[in-house]
Amino acid sequence: MSESFDAVDVIRTKRDRSELSSEQIAWVVDAYTREVVADEQMSALAMAILLNGMSRREISDWTAAMIASGERMDFSALSRPTADKHSTGGVGDKITLPLAPLVAACGVAVPQLSGRGLGHTGGTLDKLEAIPGWCASLSNEAMLEQLEHVGAVVCAAGSGLAPADKRLYALRDVTGTVEAIPLIASSIMSKKIAEGTGVLVLDVKVGSGAFMKTETDARELAETMVALGTDAGVRTVALLTDMSTPLGRTAGNGLEVRESVEVLAGGGPEDVVELTLALAREMLQGAGVTDVDPADALADGRAMDVWRRMISAQGGDPDAPLPTAQETHQVVADADGVLTRLDALAVGVSAWRLGAGRARKEDPVQAGAGVEIHARPGEQVRAGQPLLTLHTDTPERFARAVEALDGAWGIGTADEVVPTPIVIDRIA
Amino acid sequence: MSESFDAVDVIRTKRDRSELSSEQIAWVVDAYTREVVADEQMSALAMAILLNGMSRREISDWTAAMIASGERMDFSALSRPTADKHSTGGVGDKITLPLAPLVAACGVAVPQLSGRGLGHTGGTLDKLEAIPGWCASLSNEAMLEQLEHVGAVVCAAGSGLAPADKRLYALRDVTGTVEAIPLIASSIMSKKIAEGTGVLVLDVKVGSGAFMKTETDARELAETMVALGTDAGVRTVALLTDMSTPLGRTAGNGLEVRESVEVLAGGGPEDVVELTLALAREMLQGAGVTDVDPADALADGRAMDVWRRMISAQGGDPDAPLPTAQETHQVVADADGVLTRLDALAVGVSAWRLGAGRARKEDPVQAGAGVEIHARPGEQVRAGQPLLTLHTDTPERFARAVEALDGAWGIGTADEVVPTPIVIDRIA
Repeated sequence: MSESFDAVDVIRTKRDRSELSSEQIAWVVDAYTREVVADEQMSALAMAILLNGMSRREISDWTAAMIASGERMDFSALSRPTADKHSTGGVGDKITLPLAPLVAACGVAVPQLSGRGLGHTGGTLDKLEAIPGWCASLSNEAMLEQLEHVGAVVCAAGSGLAPADKRLYALRDVTGTVEAIPLIASSIMSKKIAEGTGVLVLDVKVGSGAFMKTETDARELAETMVALGTDAGVRTVALLTDMSTPLGRTAGNGLEVRESVEVLAGGGPEDVVELTLALAREMLQGAGVTDVDPADALADGRAMDVWRRMISAQGGDPDAPLPTAQETHQVVADADGVLTRLDALAVGVSAWRLGAGRARKEDPVQAGAGVEIHARPGEQVRAGQPLLTLHTDTPERFARAVEALDGAWGIGTADEVVPTPIVIDRIA
Repeated sequence: MSESFDAVDVIRTKRDRSELSSEQIAWVVDAYTREVVADEQMSALAMAILLNGMSRREISDWTAAMIASGERMDFSALSRPTADKHSTGGVGDKITLPLAPLVAACGVAVPQLSGRGLGHTGGTLDKLEAIPGWCASLSNEAMLEQLEHVGAVVCAAGSGLAPADKRLYALRDVTGTVEAIPLIASSIMSKKIAEGTGVLVLDVKVGSGAFMKTETDARELAETMVALGTDAGVRTVALLTDMSTPLGRTAGNGLEVRESVEVLAGGGPEDVVELTLALAREMLQGAGVTDVDPADALADGRAMDVWRRMISAQGGDPDAPLPTAQETHQVVADADGVLTRLDALAVGVSAWRLGAGRARKEDPVQAGAGVEIHARPGEQVRAGQPLLTLHTDTPERFARAVEALDGAWGIGTADEVVPTPIVIDRIA
């Protein structure tokens, strides 16, 4: 078969800082899927994209080409509007767990295709798999059925959505080309657009525990994704949210499920509740539901009801005790005073090393492993009092987990605490 | 085996505009040779090098790592000093053919490891293979023997010199990363340093028919290579020479051998003679031979004697008639006047399309194909008079060869001719 373009010409175009045409982009993504464009050619192109950037038009074409590589889902037969949320990943980010049933309880269906964790950020599926019996895999038919009757589904994305993205992501991971904003944005948005949600709320995290370390980068990523969603007819809004401190008081799979259930029961840490409600309000507003206050649905147990039905529908037992780790180790405060900061990346790496996360995607995770946080910035601590409890089934991991926490917090006076709002900005 | 570095870290270092350490460079080239670093990782690194550059120290380390990937030759047992020449490639560049025997006739041994052509620039081995019986392959022992007894050898480089370069060059060719000056310089210099010559004269061409289109790029490449050679203990000098117009009056394998023999017989085109003598003087001076004028050795037939012995020693018959093409086609002047320019790239592409060059490295070449040039810039022409004669065995190629010549020359007045010296500058 004769090809319409030559891979080297496409690479040279981007290398020499010219724009790729729509036809070049459609061809190169399709030819990569067909294995006509080789991995070594795509990685050179990815590096040129990372270093020379892409225009909005190029990113939009690239996203469309990724979507065209696979199937699209369609929720238009449902009796309710749909809204989905995507987080760029952080430490202690269990928001999907209370959020999906909460929004469903307010009348909007939530088709939440989620992933597993890699590196120091946790994955939603790993967290839910801490619940005995719960299963992440659903057929498209079972997903639609659950959306109609329960209102919320959290499950694994099938391999049919944007398969070009799957292959490209694995390639970027080994070639130092993950950190290209055009490629991050098109990777996320191709899957979300192909999934067919009507409303999309993006939680773009910024800070040490996030992928984007600076507000400038996070804002660029958020703006790029909002434009892509809007162009594709998805009502899209992004919140820039803080990830310099872990979210809530737990990082680790079973620990985070426990905290999420506390939130659904009307309690839980203030920051987790605040972010859950902020995202729920965006999803409801996008779906045109303006007469319901999600805070009421948390307070009166309607969100908890949907949670229990959502977990049961996927084989999980919402009443079963959650797995706990066999060993714990206390990390104590070294002075009296106010905790001035607690570094998200350090806590995330510590939890990861305890067994809550994986180094390679085929590794297992420990359901009980992780870090419990006893003091958050602004709170008073006393020398010798526990700051963190480390949990693991494999105590030989404690040493390296403690090492990751070196310099992770400060103890001083109240005026040294830099107050950071959870929601930094809204981009629509 | 445990590796001292991680490929992704090395790629990220260069991607983020930091310098690679000597240890990182030694590791990544060695690991690529061992296939621990994959092609898709090396191509991403090559693109980062192309876009972000390398310091002199990095290029020097990279070259040393390429040399260390293979064997080194040693000419120290010879009774004479050695000098080699390398051209970055051009159209009608047959200079090696008269130059090697000329320098040998003046008392300096010339171990000339050469290559084949790819694209519109010809290869020295393809040219000599037009001579009936001549063979490009020699063992290292046969090469040393011929150097001692004849004084000049032009042969194919064995696969043992800088094998990492061979693999990397093939990768760069398909990933749009050929045009990186650090990688071009280290590719050329690793082979020349491993070859073990005492003196190296570089002919760095600049202009439409050359790899480097601008004087700035050519100068940077020349300076980089001179520094690399000098650092490695090879007396290295570079001449920047013009390649906006083809060299001499022929482009094509057998046609260029004929022209070279004319030069060795004391005739031939003025520009070819001038450049041959300029390069010969540099090689002799580098080798400490200052009491011989190479112009005398051309005039009195000593260079021709060495040529005949050099060709015979490799199985060639210096008296056999050269192959000629079966078909010719005249391209005529379209006006009266002075030829103001003749574009090297257009003539090179035309000769290539006639069968003198190859598109893929496994393609054969036609010994008789090419372009004969009847008028050079500054010469008077008349409408209808032949400007060029195209030669090929496959007349269906004429149409595309003529197409390549569209706009390739101008006819005007004498004051429109921009006089360009052959040797633009000398860099030592």
